[in-house]
Amino acid sequence: MTTGHVFIATSLDGFIARPDGDIDWLHEIDAAGEDHGYDAMMESVDGLIMGRKTFEKVLTFQDWPYTKPVFVLSRTLDADAIPATLREFIKVTTAEPQVLMAELNQKGWHSVYVDGGQTIQSFLRNGLIDTLRIARLPRLIGRGVPLFGMLETDVFLEHVETRSFSSGLVSSLYRVKV
Amino acid sequence: MTTGHVFIATSLDGFIARPDGDIDWLHEIDAAGEDHGYDAMMESVDGLIMGRKTFEKVLTFQDWPYTKPVFVLSRTLDADAIPATLREFIKVTTAEPQVLMAELNQKGWHSVYVDGGQTIQSFLRNGLIDTLRIARLPRLIGRGVPLFGMLETDVFLEHVETRSFSSGLVSSLYRVKV
Repeated sequence: MTTGHVFIATSLDGFIARPDGDIDWLHEIDAAGEDHGYDAMMESVDGLIMGRKTFEKVLTFQDWPYTKPVFVLSRTLDADAIPATLREFIKVTTAEPQVLMAELNQKGWHSVYVDGGQTIQSFLRNGLIDTLRIARLPRLIGRGVPLFGMLETDVFLEHVETRSFSSGLVSSLYRVKV
Repeated sequence: MTTGHVFIATSLDGFIARPDGDIDWLHEIDAAGEDHGYDAMMESVDGLIMGRKTFEKVLTFQDWPYTKPVFVLSRTLDADAIPATLREFIKVTTAEPQVLMAELNQKGWHSVYVDGGQTIQSFLRNGLIDTLRIARLPRLIGRGVPLFGMLETDVFLEHVETRSFSSGLVSSLYRVKV
């Protein structure tokens, strides 16, 4: 079965963005020029799944940052919102997480990068996440969009490894226990 | 000035207790028999400050675990709630955080262990925390009492060091930047 992988940065208090979606506070870490493993992770996956909010945020970036196929989970997104130059890379889908993962499995995908707070939470609740790499910035922002959300039952993880960087970023890799 | 120090364990999703205050899920880590630095930290401080809820939780333990003086922040706690055998170690105070820290400074205290979610948040907002050691357990519990809360402005931290343990616990020490 295709495995889902999370690779995300949060504030020390667990937020992935400010309440308005602002992620400018993350840029100081990018500026440090350290290799936090993003390129290697991106190389290892067959493509991406993200929620609409994350997709719309990425669309505001100067350049489209992905070279691999992207599935956007949305019931409301208008296909016209996707720039014509990107339509061959991006598919909007209303499929439930399990259904989408089964479709990707059929397509021969081994692994997929799952991004966006609500999408990650939904995939976790559905047992569709295999690993999470969480990079914590040394900053408390006090409020915002949380990485994690409600769960019906505890999720047990195996700690694989942790690396820390001069910038103050601490990156931990966990595998979800099944 | 007396410095405040946090030493606390949280779930990977940032909770220090379940919604009803239950911390049984922390015991698997205690059972691992690893030295996470608690004794050294406790040795280094002159005493403790905690909120009423934390105090009432500690009172349910089989034995009173502290040998150093404890200040309990409360406007409602009845002195009769304190067992007679503990009254020489425990003082209930309604002092504001800054006032209490100034009093401790007058008494010659160099450092104090600050415990309990609301108390930690209040001391952070008032700039009274010098270091935080946060130990993350490899488990998501989905809901509960959060370690961190609202802040008026970002709090910038310096990452000092991170250690990980066979149990899966990852412990990071931060110093608050001033």
